[in-house]
Amino acid sequence: MAVSDEELFAVLEQQLYTAVISDVLDEMGYRDQVMAANLRPIGDRPLVVGRARTILAVDYYEPLDEPYGVELQFVDSLRPGDVVVAGTNQSVRNGLWGELLSTASQYRGARGAIIDGYVRDVRKIRNLGFPVWGTGTKPVDSAGRGKSIAHDCRVLCGGVYVRPGDIVFADDDGIVVIPSELVEEVVGKASVKVAAEDSTRSDLTAGMSLSEVFRRRGVL
Amino acid sequence: MAVSDEELFAVLEQQLYTAVISDVLDEMGYRDQVMAANLRPIGDRPLVVGRARTILAVDYYEPLDEPYGVELQFVDSLRPGDVVVAGTNQSVRNGLWGELLSTASQYRGARGAIIDGYVRDVRKIRNLGFPVWGTGTKPVDSAGRGKSIAHDCRVLCGGVYVRPGDIVFADDDGIVVIPSELVEEVVGKASVKVAAEDSTRSDLTAGMSLSEVFRRRGVL
Amino acid sequence: MAVSDEELFAVLEQQLYTAVISDVLDEMGYRDQVMAANLRPIGDRPLVVGRARTILAVDYYEPLDEPYGVELQFVDSLRPGDVVVAGTNQSVRNGLWGELLSTASQYRGARGAIIDGYVRDVRKIRNLGFPVWGTGTKPVDSAGRGKSIAHDCRVLCGGVYVRPGDIVFADDDGIVVIPSELVEEVVGKASVKVAAEDSTRSDLTAGMSLSEVFRRRGVL
Amino acid sequence: MAVSDEELFAVLEQQLYTAVISDVLDEMGYRDQVMAANLRPIGDRPLVVGRARTILAVDYYEPLDEPYGVELQFVDSLRPGDVVVAGTNQSVRNGLWGELLSTASQYRGARGAIIDGYVRDVRKIRNLGFPVWGTGTKPVDSAGRGKSIAHDCRVLCGGVYVRPGDIVFADDDGIVVIPSELVEEVVGKASVKVAAEDSTRSDLTAGMSLSEVFRRRGVL
Amino acid sequence: MAVSDEELFAVLEQQLYTAVISDVLDEMGYRDQVMAANLRPIGDRPLVVGRARTILAVDYYEPLDEPYGVELQFVDSLRPGDVVVAGTNQSVRNGLWGELLSTASQYRGARGAIIDGYVRDVRKIRNLGFPVWGTGTKPVDSAGRGKSIAHDCRVLCGGVYVRPGDIVFADDDGIVVIPSELVEEVVGKASVKVAAEDSTRSDLTAGMSLSEVFRRRGVL
Amino acid sequence: MAVSDEELFAVLEQQLYTAVISDVLDEMGYRDQVMAANLRPIGDRPLVVGRARTILAVDYYEPLDEPYGVELQFVDSLRPGDVVVAGTNQSVRNGLWGELLSTASQYRGARGAIIDGYVRDVRKIRNLGFPVWGTGTKPVDSAGRGKSIAHDCRVLCGGVYVRPGDIVFADDDGIVVIPSELVEEVVGKASVKVAAEDSTRSDLTAGMSLSEVFRRRGVL
Repeated sequence: MAVSDEELFAVLEQQLYTAVISDVLDEMGYRDQVMAANLRPIGDRPLVVGRARTILAVDYYEPLDEPYGVELQFVDSLRPGDVVVAGTNQSVRNGLWGELLSTASQYRGARGAIIDGYVRDVRKIRNLGFPVWGTGTKPVDSAGRGKSIAHDCRVLCGGVYVRPGDIVFADDDGIVVIPSELVEEVVGKASVKVAAEDSTRSDLTAGMSLSEVFRRRGVL
Repeated sequence: MAVSDEELFAVLEQQLYTAVISDVLDEMGYRDQVMAANLRPIGDRPLVVGRARTILAVDYYEPLDEPYGVELQFVDSLRPGDVVVAGTNQSVRNGLWGELLSTASQYRGARGAIIDGYVRDVRKIRNLGFPVWGTGTKPVDSAGRGKSIAHDCRVLCGGVYVRPGDIVFADDDGIVVIPSELVEEVVGKASVKVAAEDSTRSDLTAGMSLSEVFRRRGVL
Repeated sequence: MAVSDEELFAVLEQQLYTAVISDVLDEMGYRDQVMAANLRPIGDRPLVVGRARTILAVDYYEPLDEPYGVELQFVDSLRPGDVVVAGTNQSVRNGLWGELLSTASQYRGARGAIIDGYVRDVRKIRNLGFPVWGTGTKPVDSAGRGKSIAHDCRVLCGGVYVRPGDIVFADDDGIVVIPSELVEEVVGKASVKVAAEDSTRSDLTAGMSLSEVFRRRGVL
Repeated sequence: MAVSDEELFAVLEQQLYTAVISDVLDEMGYRDQVMAANLRPIGDRPLVVGRARTILAVDYYEPLDEPYGVELQFVDSLRPGDVVVAGTNQSVRNGLWGELLSTASQYRGARGAIIDGYVRDVRKIRNLGFPVWGTGTKPVDSAGRGKSIAHDCRVLCGGVYVRPGDIVFADDDGIVVIPSELVEEVVGKASVKVAAEDSTRSDLTAGMSLSEVFRRRGVL
Repeated sequence: MAVSDEELFAVLEQQLYTAVISDVLDEMGYRDQVMAANLRPIGDRPLVVGRARTILAVDYYEPLDEPYGVELQFVDSLRPGDVVVAGTNQSVRNGLWGELLSTASQYRGARGAIIDGYVRDVRKIRNLGFPVWGTGTKPVDSAGRGKSIAHDCRVLCGGVYVRPGDIVFADDDGIVVIPSELVEEVVGKASVKVAAEDSTRSDLTAGMSLSEVFRRRGVL
Repeated sequence: MAVSDEELFAVLEQQLYTAVISDVLDEMGYRDQVMAANLRPIGDRPLVVGRARTILAVDYYEPLDEPYGVELQFVDSLRPGDVVVAGTNQSVRNGLWGELLSTASQYRGARGAIIDGYVRDVRKIRNLGFPVWGTGTKPVDSAGRGKSIAHDCRVLCGGVYVRPGDIVFADDDGIVVIPSELVEEVVGKASVKVAAEDSTRSDLTAGMSLSEVFRRRGVL
């Protein structure tokens, strides 16, 4: 019997953390699933889990006739459980995300946004309680600086290829992407690993040397 | 009848924010007025507005006979309403700004300092309540590392050309520079734009789709 | 009569700060003793002082037969007063440090860790109250990414060459390294300098101009 | 009476050079018209002048249904006197330009190509005698890496904004862009300046000191 | 019947080129096989093909007791057909490769060296006629700067993971790595693709438009 | 009896090379005397040796009243045997050096110029036969971009601190700086080392293994 997304998200949020997910993905041969360290939370609630909904915005150097076509369609199509994942080809000119898109996304049930670029309106976003990650804050708009060219395509965000439907999981340590087809296997293995780590921690706080713990447990 | 600086600063601080100022400057064709995202507040009160007073310090590799000539003259000439804007040609060696300069600047009535370089004595600066922005903290001094070569000249700070007298406005999102000759026009237009954004926000929180809001308001 | 490490550490922690230590080292001709500004505290207690214990981890691209040999030996040999200083050759792939190594280090009496690379398990590390500095957070492990090749060797950390036994001192401003043979001289000179700075500060808050203070005190 | 493009190009190629054009543009207040130094000629004939025809290619992470639509339309529309100017948003993944596009461009009469990205087939391009500039060579294709999203739009190439019809002029020193509306004024002033520089050079080789030459000529 | 390495190398060198190999690997899903563009040939004969023999050197900050252990063993074990592939974890301090190692490698029959770092003795290396690639030239030695920690391990060189025995192929465009298990399939497919490209080129030089050629041939 | 500069320069140019000088300086504990690899020769005669004459130019953002004061004085004071060494604080905006300064410097007997920045008029400089190194070519002038603030001071050029009178030696491999007080000792030791390297090379070309050569000679 399949696990619902709600159940899955709850296990990830409440029992697991990005480090153990990264370790399990490593062991399964998926070693490029953790986003770059310059993607930081804008607010002080750095925890989100959900299904990736992707958008790709690029630097552009002219005003557009229909400046927000792709964004509007994208945001209006968001559904509960979605997490916005925006690739920008590492833009340092454009300002893709701000309060209005956060407000609209939150209203549709989106759980957060991971923006591989600058974010603005950060005080208002914090007040909304909508979790947003970005590479920094800069009070510039996308008008005349960028163009969203596609949504729900494969994007590169924080150095990780993300496809629509992949699970995005962010906490204090950073952001990990679980390919959608692996999610149940990953969560299962991670739950086992957490138990092993708890034993290791107990050994250490009981005064055992690290070498002894490693000999005994076989893992660190 | 001209608006006094005090009135102007109050409107900016209390009713406006850097994002809307940036949008208005964009529309007027001034598209390079927002400083780089690596300029971050040292303290937790990231809000300042005032007239730019500029200084340019460069890397230097010998002790100086009169090590602090330009800094002393500059700081002693600061007046109420001034904001220090220091260019350093992107130095990663020098340490231009610290507690003593902050104390002296604050005493003269300066409202803050934007340093395109490293800052030290950050705990003491926070205790002073003097708002300072920098590219990081590093406990090094300028002696034998740098030389201030001019003040009240045009400088490049955070990628923006700043002239003495320009309005510097920083908040949570970042730092925007308003050319002095444009300030009344910019503030006027920004006030109008804020009202429009309030309407957009109301539409969104009333459940309207983003596309519908855009069709109705013509802006986002 | 020699000063004990405990006494030394207490003076540094309670009466001195990194900026004044850096100034004294500058005057003595040691001008490259301050670590790079991208080394930031993981927790909110950015204060540590102790003797450097060094380890060097490098990027590696295969699983290892004995993956943790050098780390285990190193951490199990830590003693009270030690501060871990880890060079990584500026790795952006590897994840050297996390909760388990922090727990084990803290148990042995180490006072903190300076990691020239990414750190994970940051929430748990904050809960431990073990002071750790890093270049960012990233939830990746060292397995299949890195190899610790030596400990208690000279390393490069944050751009400073650190030898085992050197004094490491970190506060809000950053991290300074005092060569072990200089520590008593440095601490002595720094104590004198702090008194002079207190006088300068009093002059300034009494309304004296910066130029006048400099003429009077000869220092800034 | 208007000067023909052919006449204009001949004067630039045979009598002028990028340095003097840059100086004249500087004096007229156009100070950002010289491309970045990492744009280097692929062949050993680094000289081209012509009218910019622009194309913008961006990084993309999926195969495309119509992979070459914009490129085909663009290249087939090239005419004698055109110089291809390709913006790529500073891509280091994509490989936009190679032998086939060079062959087709040359056949249509294009005079060269300035690619703000990597180029491949460099030996064959050299054999064609078609002048191409790029940021390096890399034998990768655009398929699955990039998407051309527009042509004959304003682009950013080597840090300079280029519009269709602007004059592009490249020689050993680098690449300068003359806004189309200024070209006759610029060429006129540059011709005068060349004569003055010849006098300065004569003075120097006659043994005059640099200070004396500057006093006499008022320029350097 | 298996193809000998000699036959394989001859086909690659004489009939194929890196661009077509990269295209075939792309189509087979191997999209990260081309080294970074900053790896450039030291001499003017940029052509080499052979089997990778790997070595990994890392930055180190102390003199070594046995400074050259791994290098000596490695170079003395080179055999005809080998190409040295040296990872350095992107060192900008160390100087791994020079004339003596080139001389010894050439004597053992190695066909060239790809060094992901600086090279010295470049004039002598050019005189030897031994093909070497590097990220630049710098006259520094490895003594006190680096340590070779393993050979014939998987390394990262120019951003590509290389295993011993993989085929390394470099020409004017750059360097491509063919995983050893794919080499016959890749060479076979590349030969077919070269023929198709020849037809495309003929169409173009016969005056056909690029759109027409693409419609007709289905490839570019 | 002291060696004349002419004799010294002749030995360096004709019998020694930068790699052996760097090795000798390393052994004497001077390990930061080799300039960065991005300083490349503009012409095809990359060989110069002479006494450093230093100048420091910094980015500046306004026209100057006396734009060329320091340059004029500096160039007019050059004497036979001098090599210009220009620090620019790593400018990527300014264009310090070109044909006129090369012509004037060559006339005064200077032997070459090492510019830690962009150079222009490269074709004319090549025709002069005046050896110039730079970080690239860019056809921009210093007017409105830079200011020379001192000459014959200690500068940082290519990452090496250079004082007036130090020996600058550049060849195909790069640029090494010999502190003036060490020059006779360095040249003496280097001559001995060259002889040892000749023996090593003979051993290798006679077919000895690298391990055997190292055992026999004790050096590589």
